[in-house]
This record gives sequence, structure tokens and C-alpha cells, in this order.
Amino acid sequence: MPKILITHADIVTLDPQGTVLRNADVAIEGERIVAVGQAPADFRPDEVVEARNHVLMPGFVNAHTHAPMTFERGWAEDLPLDRWFNERVWVVESQLTADDVYWGALLAAAEMIRSGTVAFADHYFYMDRVAEAVEQAGLRALLAWCVFGEEGNIGTDLPGTVDFVQRWQGAAGDRIHTVLGPHSPYMCEPRFLARTAAVAARLGVGIHIHLAESQAQVDNSLARYDRTPVELLEANGVFDVPVIAAHCIYVNEVDQAILARRGVTVVQCPNCHMKLGMGVTPVPALLAQGVNVALGTDGPASSNDLNMLKEARLAALIQKLHRADPQVMPGDLPLRMATQNGARALGWPDSGAILPGYRADLILLDCDKPHWRPRHDLVANLLHSAQAGDVSDVMVAGRWLMRRRQLLTLDEQRILWEAERRALALVDKDLTIVRAYQA
Amino acid sequence: MPKILITHADIVTLDPQGTVLRNADVAIEGERIVAVGQAPADFRPDEVVEARNHVLMPGFVNAHTHAPMTFERGWAEDLPLDRWFNERVWVVESQLTADDVYWGALLAAAEMIRSGTVAFADHYFYMDRVAEAVEQAGLRALLAWCVFGEEGNIGTDLPGTVDFVQRWQGAAGDRIHTVLGPHSPYMCEPRFLARTAAVAARLGVGIHIHLAESQAQVDNSLARYDRTPVELLEANGVFDVPVIAAHCIYVNEVDQAILARRGVTVVQCPNCHMKLGMGVTPVPALLAQGVNVALGTDGPASSNDLNMLKEARLAALIQKLHRADPQVMPGDLPLRMATQNGARALGWPDSGAILPGYRADLILLDCDKPHWRPRHDLVANLLHSAQAGDVSDVMVAGRWLMRRRQLLTLDEQRILWEAERRALALVDKDLTIVRAYQA
Repeated sequence: MPKILITHADIVTLDPQGTVLRNADVAIEGERIVAVGQAPADFRPDEVVEARNHVLMPGFVNAHTHAPMTFERGWAEDLPLDRWFNERVWVVESQLTADDVYWGALLAAAEMIRSGTVAFADHYFYMDRVAEAVEQAGLRALLAWCVFGEEGNIGTDLPGTVDFVQRWQGAAGDRIHTVLGPHSPYMCEPRFLARTAAVAARLGVGIHIHLAESQAQVDNSLARYDRTPVELLEANGVFDVPVIAAHCIYVNEVDQAILARRGVTVVQCPNCHMKLGMGVTPVPALLAQGVNVALGTDGPASSNDLNMLKEARLAALIQKLHRADPQVMPGDLPLRMATQNGARALGWPDSGAILPGYRADLILLDCDKPHWRPRHDLVANLLHSAQAGDVSDVMVAGRWLMRRRQLLTLDEQRILWEAERRALALVDKDLTIVRAYQA
Repeated sequence: MPKILITHADIVTLDPQGTVLRNADVAIEGERIVAVGQAPADFRPDEVVEARNHVLMPGFVNAHTHAPMTFERGWAEDLPLDRWFNERVWVVESQLTADDVYWGALLAAAEMIRSGTVAFADHYFYMDRVAEAVEQAGLRALLAWCVFGEEGNIGTDLPGTVDFVQRWQGAAGDRIHTVLGPHSPYMCEPRFLARTAAVAARLGVGIHIHLAESQAQVDNSLARYDRTPVELLEANGVFDVPVIAAHCIYVNEVDQAILARRGVTVVQCPNCHMKLGMGVTPVPALLAQGVNVALGTDGPASSNDLNMLKEARLAALIQKLHRADPQVMPGDLPLRMATQNGARALGWPDSGAILPGYRADLILLDCDKPHWRPRHDLVANLLHSAQAGDVSDVMVAGRWLMRRRQLLTLDEQRILWEAERRALALVDKDLTIVRAYQA
């Protein structure tokens, strides 16, 4: 197995003690970290990477997104949710081909690698093509093919997603995990949710779902079923399998206790929640109850990018503002939500910290820049000063996906060109601009 | 006068119509833009800059900061305001020498240029040294020496700041403007505010002040003077000169009408307001009343960086969240607040738009990156996807301060080293890390 030694790095380990090491080494053998601090005397590396003036930390995990919606970045601005969907997003989405999804996912993969993301939980359509993009990019992903109900939808139905799970679970050297993707308790009938949960249990996989995004959803659920959306999912057996629940903005204390007791991972998407004026997920309360809370970007049609460093920063800022208390969400907590909490939910609990035995899913950030000085507190520098573009190197499972800002697994220029060409064509945009760039 | 032609740029002009040009040129002669779109047939440039795959826009204006507080970046995290100041910020500030301020300002200047800022309004101590840094960096700045009251403080008193104004007003080829800097209506006695206003009027300069940062400040003002802080400033003649009022979070409708009628510029600092849990400046209401609202970072001790692209983004996000309405702060409005609204307040009303006759204060952003594709809407790409590190070139008054990411006016490596060394020494940090980097 290849051995890599990274030397002279400042390491934000995100281990249980929050250890920060300066001028330290990380030794990697195969897909695992074998030593942190100093390499064993008998470690004979095949590759040595000098990381002076760089911070080394676990790679980010984007625990809720719709990656191919890169095609709709900047396409639906400043609109209320219904008009956002009906007048803009659906105009593009209803025309998407499987090939479009492939190129949209590749564009997302390039952006994710460049911004330090090593794994993502995706919830979309034509997911075989997303899986192909993941395999090629070298990322990890937990993939869910979104289904609205018994009648099926874009490209598949529940039996079709069972086939998808069986095709891809554990693929790409276990870099691909799969789950079922019923859209939400407001789009899916309870009977369908119950059937999906039973199928997931039989397959031995989990569920990735949207939950409690608006007060109206809660009110409608109470009116129709006399249960909150969380209670409705519990009553229909959805929480009998591992669940990733995106958003959970409108969850009361009873809901919170259910989410904690049933081991549900809640994914907050702060940028999206702000941009669409949705509200604030009660993260401190959820954490206090023992819920695993991770972070996601949601799709680029709402958040406009796939930048997890920004989501971590916003996860701190949104609570400090909302609770009028600068002491909430302290220290490295938002970074843990953006890394190890997501990794656990995606099925890689031994990723997301720089510790011996952990998976070598890590990034380097170049801190030879004014916004990184002085270094009183590297965690604060990372959370509140660093930019996604500072990420210089990305490793997943011991393999470099980016070195010195060069993507090693993807043909970036071809992706930029092909993805933009396809995205603009879907909305009948004048393509002269693209042709000009191509020339 | 030197003539520069920038070709093939995508231009977000921020002109009154919000014109966006693609594949267009900008011609510059001396300190001014002379043509936009296509250069005159007889324009003979001394320098041609090919800007394909770049967005060209007005440079950012940081309308409220304490630049030398770069020394305290990451030094006071997750604390309530009183402890933030007394236990952390003051520990450093009370030891600062004039030389420290100089190096802190140079570090800030390097960061500002790298993130596309062309002008800033600074409010601090030892301002002669900040002025030196501005002169050297090539930036524009409106400088205020902060004074707490008659008895004077760190380095000066009111007569001393009059000398400062007389030394520097219009210096560096009119790149330096000055104002008086009484700290705030809660730190300064009304009589001192009145005297400062009279002195400013006599000098023909304005005032830069903190205003209405907390409900407690308003309550105390009402209890002590039977006037809100805004009413107190008006009653003491402060608004008889041009005023930049930072924060204005707690201003009622009467206050807002006063601010509008008296032509006060309000500066919102969204990142700081979130991080310290201060609240939300009622920007849509202020704009509706006709107030000129600009954006600032506040000092890096609270916001941790000097990134105006992030402030513009947060200015949109904070209102959409606060008002639960994705339609507020639409389109390029936050970019206008981050550029031309600030420029007007700093005394350069003909900066902040890409228009013939305007000052050549502009930046280029490299958009040959995944997070910039597709380009459905360049304004949305700028506001919600771009990163400060995408800024590749910065021009102030027709002079390049950065070309292809290289700083042309500052010795960046020396600044990084000297500023960090001094900042860590102030808090008795172990300097081995700095020595290691130096070796």
C-alpha cells in the first residue's frame, strides 16, 4: 500500500479534545491515517508532501445537496418559494436529461473538490449518472434517488430505486453508499412512506428525506393527520432505519426528543435557510437533546454554491444572531458539524478527524495570505477568515484528488464548458457568450 | 496621461440601469474611465489587458472599519460584548504602539487589496500611521482619529485630531480624506459632541461615529437625556456636517426620518452584527426613507476579516432571513451598498460605477472556476457564489495595485511576517511558530 508523509502542517485534528498541532506530520498508509504528530521511525514514505504554511484538517462533508442543480445556479433569485419552484426551477428541471444530470454532477464534483469537500449526500434524479460522476471524481457520496410517490417520477419509481441501491451500494471501493429518497412527508402519502421504510429495512439501507421546512407544512400535517411531520414519520416506521432529515426548522420539543431518541441526523442548510427566508433550525436545542446535527448546502439553485466552509461560518453566525448570544455555537463546533457529524450520517463514522486509524479524507489550506494573519487561533481563522479558495490539496481514501490547486481526477476545462453549454441551452439563453469563451 | 485598455471583460457596471455588458472593453486615461463598451477609434493605449473569463466591476468600499485591529483577528471569540472588550480586545489595544498600528494597517491594506476593496473609512488611533500605510498601498481612505472626550485618549485629543485633519486632508493625490471621529453618543458627553461638530463645520469636514448599537444604549439615552441617540446627535448639531453613522441597529421610525432628512450615511456591518448577536439594521426601511446605506466589515477583532464580497452577501441574507421574505434586498442592491453608496459617503461620489467620467477604481474577478458556472446571472454569481480570492486585479485611480494576484505596491511577505510577529508578541504568545515560518 502506498505510503504518504505530510510534514510541517498546522493540524486542526477535530479529535475529541479539539487538539491543534503545529508544525506536525501526518503519515498515511493506503486509505488510512497511521500516525499524527510524528511518523514512526520506520515509516518509509513513497511520497513526501511539505505542508509548511498550510493548515491540515478533515475534509468537509456536505450532508444535504442536489448536486446536479449546479445547472440552476443564479437562475432563480429573490423569489418566494412557490414562484422559485414553479416559474424557474421546474422550467429547467422538467427538461433535464440523464446526460445533463451527469454533467451537472461533474461540475458539482469539481466545485466540491476545489472547496475541500470529500463526501456528500445527494438527493436527485437519474442517480446512476451521479454515481458515475462520483466514481470518476474520487469523492465519497451517499446517493438517494428522489421519489414522490407510488406513481413514480422523473426516471424511476420505488422499485427502480431498489435496483439503483442494489447496483451501487458499496461501489467504487466503498466510496458510494446508497439510501432511499422519499421526497418529504408533504409530498409523499403516509402509506408510501411506510412502504419505503419497510423496503429500506429489508435492503439494510437508510432514508434521506426533507422534513419540517415551513410552519405551513407543520400546520397542514396537524390538520390532516393530527401529527407533526416528525410524528408522522415516526408513526410510519421511517425512523426504524437510519435517517438523514434535511432542514428540520419547525420542530417542537417533542419532535426534538423523537429525533434524538431515534438517532436521526438533522442537516441544517444555513445559506439556503437565510436566502429563502425559511427560518432557523434550533441547532443548540437539538444538540442539547443529543441529536447528530450536520450541515449541507442544499442545491445550488437556492444556495448558489457548494461551499461548506461558508456553511460552517453561517452555522455559527445564524445562531449567534437568532439567539442574540455570541456565546452559542462556540469554538470548533461548526467545523465538527461540517465534517465528522456528516461523515457519521453518510456511513463513514471513522472519517472526519485527523486520528490514527481514521480514513485519510483530509484537506490542506494555504495560509500564506493576509486574511490568515496573525494566527492567534487556527480554529477561528478557519471558521471566520478562511475562504474556500484557500483549499490547495484534497485527499480522499489516501488518494489525492487535488494537488497544488490542480484537479487530478477530472477534466475541469471540459466540464466547465460542457456543463455551461448545456445549462444555458435549457433556458434558451444566447450562447454567443459560451462560443466566445470557447474560441 | 497613461492610457489603459481592458478588453473582453464581462462588466457589471452598477450604472443606474444596472447594465451588464458581455465581452466588452473599458478605456482608462489617467485616473478616469473614458469609455465603456468599446474604446473610441482613436484611443491608443499604452497598456492592453486581456480580461476574457473575467468579470469587471467597481471596487468595494468598506465604509466602517478599524483596520489595525487585524492584530486581534481570532483573539476574542464567542464572548459577550463586555468580556470581548475588557478581557480580550483592550488587553491588546492598550499596549499598541504607533508602529504596531502602522503594521496592522499595512496587513489590512494587503488583505483589502486582495479582496477587491479600493477604499475604506477607518476609525482608530495613531491615524498618521494609518495614513502612511494608505499612501503606500495606493488605496483611498477616509480617516478618523477616534476620540472619547475632552480629556483625550490614546495618542491624541480633539485639538490633536484637528492637526491630523490639517496634515492629511486631500493628501496622496486626494486619495486621503479626513473627518473627525468622536466615538459615540454613549462614550462622549453631549457637550463634547457639540464642540466636535462645531470644529468639523469650521474645518469643512464630516464626522464618523458609532450609533445605536444596542437597545441598552437607546434606553440609557432616553433615561439620561430624554432623547434617542439619533435625536441626541441631531440636537447637538452633529448632523450639521456630513456624517457616517456605523451600525444604527436600534433606530425607530422617527430616528430613520431624521437620518434621511439630514443626509446621514448609515453603515451596516452584517458579519459583525451576526457574530456578536447585536441585531439587524432595518436597511429596507432606511432605504425606503431615502437614507444612503453602505456596508462595512467593522474591525477584524469582531468580524475576523475585511471581506466586502462576504458583507454584500450577508447584507442580502440577513434581511431575507430577518423578514422571512426572499424578495427583499433584490438583485444588485447589496453590491451597490458595498461600492457606490460607500464611495459617496467617503467623498468620492464619482466612484463606484463603471461609467465614462467616473474614477478608475475597479476590479477584475477570475471566473474560470466551477463555482462561477453557468453564468445565467452575473450579479447573482458575484453576490452569492464568488469568493474574495477570485479577485485577480485591482485598480485605484487608474493605477494597478494588484495584477494577476501579485500585489504591486506592498511588500506582502514582509508585512505578513512583521505584523504577525508584533501581534503575537502583544499577547505573549509562544513565538516558535513564527520563527519556524521565518526559517
